[in-house]
Amino acid sequence: MKQNTVPDNYRSAIGKSRHDLTTPALILDLPIARSNIHTMAEYMRGVPAKLRPHIKVHKSPELARMQMEAGECLGMTTATVWEAVLMVRGGIDDVLVANAIVGPQKVRTIAELAREAHILVAIDNARNAEDLSNAALQAGSVLGVLIDLDVGMARCGVRSKEEALRLAEHTSKLRGLHLEGMMGYEGHCMLEPDADLRVRKAHAAMDYLVETVDFLAQHGFESKIISGGGTGTYNITGAHPRVTELQAGSYVVMDAFHAQLIPGFPPALTVLGTVISRHGSRVILDTGRKTVGNELGLPRLKDVAASTAAIAEEHLLIDVESGNTLKVGDKAEVISGYGPTTVNLHDVYYVVEQDVVTDIWPIRARATGLGPYC
Amino acid sequence: MKQNTVPDNYRSAIGKSRHDLTTPALILDLPIARSNIHTMAEYMRGVPAKLRPHIKVHKSPELARMQMEAGECLGMTTATVWEAVLMVRGGIDDVLVANAIVGPQKVRTIAELAREAHILVAIDNARNAEDLSNAALQAGSVLGVLIDLDVGMARCGVRSKEEALRLAEHTSKLRGLHLEGMMGYEGHCMLEPDADLRVRKAHAAMDYLVETVDFLAQHGFESKIISGGGTGTYNITGAHPRVTELQAGSYVVMDAFHAQLIPGFPPALTVLGTVISRHGSRVILDTGRKTVGNELGLPRLKDVAASTAAIAEEHLLIDVESGNTLKVGDKAEVISGYGPTTVNLHDVYYVVEQDVVTDIWPIRARATGLGPYC
Repeated sequence: MKQNTVPDNYRSAIGKSRHDLTTPALILDLPIARSNIHTMAEYMRGVPAKLRPHIKVHKSPELARMQMEAGECLGMTTATVWEAVLMVRGGIDDVLVANAIVGPQKVRTIAELAREAHILVAIDNARNAEDLSNAALQAGSVLGVLIDLDVGMARCGVRSKEEALRLAEHTSKLRGLHLEGMMGYEGHCMLEPDADLRVRKAHAAMDYLVETVDFLAQHGFESKIISGGGTGTYNITGAHPRVTELQAGSYVVMDAFHAQLIPGFPPALTVLGTVISRHGSRVILDTGRKTVGNELGLPRLKDVAASTAAIAEEHLLIDVESGNTLKVGDKAEVISGYGPTTVNLHDVYYVVEQDVVTDIWPIRARATGLGPYC
Repeated sequence: MKQNTVPDNYRSAIGKSRHDLTTPALILDLPIARSNIHTMAEYMRGVPAKLRPHIKVHKSPELARMQMEAGECLGMTTATVWEAVLMVRGGIDDVLVANAIVGPQKVRTIAELAREAHILVAIDNARNAEDLSNAALQAGSVLGVLIDLDVGMARCGVRSKEEALRLAEHTSKLRGLHLEGMMGYEGHCMLEPDADLRVRKAHAAMDYLVETVDFLAQHGFESKIISGGGTGTYNITGAHPRVTELQAGSYVVMDAFHAQLIPGFPPALTVLGTVISRHGSRVILDTGRKTVGNELGLPRLKDVAASTAAIAEEHLLIDVESGNTLKVGDKAEVISGYGPTTVNLHDVYYVVEQDVVTDIWPIRARATGLGPYC
């Protein structure tokens, strides 16, 4: 694995003002991120569950270490094997890959990683469990496994209690694997804009997970871990009396989508843009789809009263209110529509404290993850 | 600018079968790309316009050189300064940045690049023209400029003939700039699914551009270049008797969006995925939004009868027909919904010929473009 180097052309930004960067530039306001991390840790001190934050959002070992230090945090959750490698290399010794791990290189890599840290993986398939078992035996490691239950996303996950039980029975016979519990991700509930209905849907999803956990226990398979949740349901799933681990992750950096759902976590992540054209109230910035994620909501300007008209590949189209003085050449900060896909587009974070760039952090484990930083 | 190196962990794929790659992997089927390049060159031999392909799609100097060699090609079009640098370093000596170039580092870079190659830039703003003029004088270069006319996108571009004339008058007085013509991008017409209406809309947009060109000529400002068009309108705008340069680009690699609009250009670009979960007819691949662009249409499987249900960050949800045998661990190739944003997500192309990986090409000029390969 190569050294964690940052190219000189990025590093020269250290010491600059956040508004003097060449755009588009991904800015991480570190004091805000730190504050969000502490707000969540404070919340978790009051509920039975612990935190296992999802780092698919920020992909940052630096932020993960801050999350561990803030307390109430068991380890990290990742979506890919390469993110798990990144976390362990960054000093995190307890990682859940909340996703099916399929394919020889990925299976081998996660089994070998389990020699260095406590690794949990999600499974929903007997043959995949066998592959993981064989790889763990080959690597001389033990992989913790959680049976993934589909609680409404119709994505990965077994489709019934009975299917969960069959997989538990099969897995318990496989050497190199240690069945530690179950997970169910209720991401479909976050998209519910009505707050009351969101609470009812999320409760129903977690109740189904807990029923399945109890069904397995009746057959001799105890779940030490019951894992679920995201930022959009942190105070629903996180407060569930039976959930042991909350996978929330977006609360650290935030975005326009999650900000609509939950208050109390100001955006720490922005993309600095430049006004490249203006015609009347229409302002065009150089922060398009290739640098700003927008899947679940349009990006919006920070601290500027304006509405977002559209986003194209290289352009963000904004309609400002009368009296707005933004002109060609001015900078503006854009709050992304969706944080995880925004971070995934960039090579580095410009880390900012008191408006000055104090560090540059490379962003690794993008796409296949086999990039120059891995 | 650093050497064009590819990390060893990618390079070791050379010689493998296309289906043995670790997924998600961006595959470029080189014989298909070459065939698409020749199909377009052949078409252009029959119309008055020449080709200036947009490389925001593929970002590849290798493909750009093939486009030049196929004939009927004046040079390349780019969306950013960094893409223009990439092209000139790759041996292309005539490049249009079809976008406003704003900000000191970008303006200085493009002015310095114009010492090495014929560079054209789009302008819609007097103050920006002055900045470009000053930078060209400083660099000892001359920048060709095209006045950008908004023909319906409400994005960059002057909003009227009169505004175009005022900018032409202003620009003609600025040293270091050479007014060479006008451009107007009718991208809004490509989104028109009705073929007849698409033809009428695209003709109307180009007629407005030509009227403005003639208006400027009446006032003493001749346009040598009249530039517009994309793959979705290549046989409309490309056949316009007055258009001199066609900016089509997607035809080389193709995607599901453009394939719906125009026949004759099979997809050369796919993302190889692995089936990580299957439940009945629902198949889940590891090719989500972080590796497959999907803005203008959902991705779809190549050579498999199936419908795409949804795409999430790490997952593509496919419903297959009865009898389909795809199982966990199998590979499948995904045709992206939109090519430009797909390429932008990856570090490298796996270049494939006769199903074998024959080369690895780094993908540069992503995001700010100041990446490790620049």
